[in-house]
Amino acid sequence: VRVSSPVSPPRDPVVVLASDAFKGSLAAPAVCASMARGLRRVWPKVEVRSCPMADGGEGTLEAVLMGVGLRGSRHARIVSGAGGNPIEVAYGILDSPDGNVAIVEVAQVVGIADRVAMALPAASRSTRGVGELIRALLDADVRRFLVALGGSSTNDGGAGMLTALGARLLDSEGETVAPAPSALGAIERVDVASLDPRLETCEVILLSDVDNPLCGRRGATATFGPQKGVASQDLAAFDEALARFAGHVESALQRHVATSPGAGAAGGLGFALQVLGGSSRSGAEFVADLVGLDASLEGADWLITGEGRSDAQTLAGKAPLVAASRARAAGVPATLVSGALDSAALSELGRHFAGCFAIPAAPMTMAASIAEADELLADRVEQLARLWAAAHE
Amino acid sequence: VRVSSPVSPPRDPVVVLASDAFKGSLAAPAVCASMARGLRRVWPKVEVRSCPMADGGEGTLEAVLMGVGLRGSRHARIVSGAGGNPIEVAYGILDSPDGNVAIVEVAQVVGIADRVAMALPAASRSTRGVGELIRALLDADVRRFLVALGGSSTNDGGAGMLTALGARLLDSEGETVAPAPSALGAIERVDVASLDPRLETCEVILLSDVDNPLCGRRGATATFGPQKGVASQDLAAFDEALARFAGHVESALQRHVATSPGAGAAGGLGFALQVLGGSSRSGAEFVADLVGLDASLEGADWLITGEGRSDAQTLAGKAPLVAASRARAAGVPATLVSGALDSAALSELGRHFAGCFAIPAAPMTMAASIAEADELLADRVEQLARLWAAAHE
Repeated sequence: VRVSSPVSPPRDPVVVLASDAFKGSLAAPAVCASMARGLRRVWPKVEVRSCPMADGGEGTLEAVLMGVGLRGSRHARIVSGAGGNPIEVAYGILDSPDGNVAIVEVAQVVGIADRVAMALPAASRSTRGVGELIRALLDADVRRFLVALGGSSTNDGGAGMLTALGARLLDSEGETVAPAPSALGAIERVDVASLDPRLETCEVILLSDVDNPLCGRRGATATFGPQKGVASQDLAAFDEALARFAGHVESALQRHVATSPGAGAAGGLGFALQVLGGSSRSGAEFVADLVGLDASLEGADWLITGEGRSDAQTLAGKAPLVAASRARAAGVPATLVSGALDSAALSELGRHFAGCFAIPAAPMTMAASIAEADELLADRVEQLARLWAAAHE
Repeated sequence: VRVSSPVSPPRDPVVVLASDAFKGSLAAPAVCASMARGLRRVWPKVEVRSCPMADGGEGTLEAVLMGVGLRGSRHARIVSGAGGNPIEVAYGILDSPDGNVAIVEVAQVVGIADRVAMALPAASRSTRGVGELIRALLDADVRRFLVALGGSSTNDGGAGMLTALGARLLDSEGETVAPAPSALGAIERVDVASLDPRLETCEVILLSDVDNPLCGRRGATATFGPQKGVASQDLAAFDEALARFAGHVESALQRHVATSPGAGAAGGLGFALQVLGGSSRSGAEFVADLVGLDASLEGADWLITGEGRSDAQTLAGKAPLVAASRARAAGVPATLVSGALDSAALSELGRHFAGCFAIPAAPMTMAASIAEADELLADRVEQLARLWAAAHE
């Protein structure tokens, strides 16, 4: 009888890197690259599997394109920004056996980083450019759309997009009403006779990390209006105008979605896309599937995830939590390394991760931490890998 | 033939906590208590072995008293502070089969935290109070002294202490000269006839973390004078005065120690104690022995050490490096958790530790980090323990 040694020769671990972007600092692929650099300082031949994550917000296009590799391509087009200003936006095209899929990131068109639009009042910002982009893609024979809804500056219920696609908003005199929050309250009828007929044959998937309805206490205006610059005394009027607009759109299209989860995403753009037949999905879960996270976890020893700031919202299903949940199902420990941790949420976060860490190596300002994030992150992951190696022996 | 399972049932690790103080924030025993709290959140029954460390500076008295347990006792006495102001100082008495050992922490008597003394110019500060305390201890039949030299505000070469013990500093007229840096240059002779004769039968061990000589380029004045408030244009005069004073002391006592390592500790107090027969030791190594660090490491799985700030000076033999070196000899991985890490030294520090970490969980000010150190430290160690547990499986 041969008794084999119970001690295997030590080998470098297989590590899955599945981080969201550090918003304002590093895109998700760059985060994974920094993490990989830290790991290689400890294990020069470590097997790293990079699965950049996103949750439907800013950075989703980049994560999806990275995830699909050669099947995807990046394109650009000039459309109207939220303030009517021309803006060059990036979008993706994903080759698929069933036809091309367009990846539209709403934050590229009407994002909060657009200074021209942000200088205008929220009441005059519109999603018209999103409709222009979709129309151009329809012209290019695209019939499948993946729309990432996070990071918008608009609160127009998708009125701008609908008019760009052919809908007409009419007042009591039958005159056309502008598709901006300031005018929506005057709508008496929505004419969908000229709505682009090609939309009926489209498949639209909406990626979002929020499940808010269009109106009411948990609606788009009450929840996200203030951070888009809607004054507190105007919140009720915005909400009423959205409700009025939505009622007319629902009557015209004979579809009722204003109260469905996600209708309140992107200032109600979620509503307009759902009323056209789109279905909402969790952005993080969808991206995890698209980048093949489950397959990457097979035979892996450790997953590292992260995001710019981790707090109670992380627990509501942001990318790091989805990554940890997939890792748990695969029996792989998941460690969180973020730009910052909210100490008040740490105890709860700790239940989901094999350790939660932040990148600062000393007291420092937020600005310094953001400016040095690339190296701080590599350093932090290096030190965690040193501990991992020691504990694993 | 029975083949036993190669998998042992998982057990909680045995963890040695051997941290220095986080100066200005937590004493070493408090640091170890915070770390233990973090560990118990992950492993409620973890075996913790606390070995609070010190390096001969501020906090050495507390660490030593904690280390020796019931064999030690804490006492207090009023002596002269560095500015001549009365000051209550703590000291320790350690029972030993060979007679009592007094533990004198110079930082208690002439420390940089004494605002009265620090408001005076460096030229007028003196170590007289150290001599007063030693004399009182001699009166109490103490003949063995452990003197922790770090953290002083003085630069008098120990002249104050020597005069308090009976030495007389005389100028060319035979008049007594004050034992302060401003007057040392006038000395023509040192009269040791009245020096306390009991000193000849004493054993004095000096604890320090510096090996500087008394004078010259690496001397007490050049190295530590500026941080004690000696103006750059006065450095040369201070150094010359110390050299002159030292030459006369050495002639009188027929012992030459001004160039020996550690003579420059505590503004030259190291010189005066060496010239009385004291021998210098590494404070951190001595404390490690006294608290029984090697015995605590037997059968341990993990050591955690730390200090207020880790940088290139840590590598010169501070307490965390001594703890890591003892741990390595025992085959136990050592992890560093400090208040702050100098990123520039991190790569070098990383070679000595199984991971180097800092307590901030997000960008924050130094003041906030110090104020919240107790909880930040428990949180950080908790999260490291979660990673350890996952990696160890």
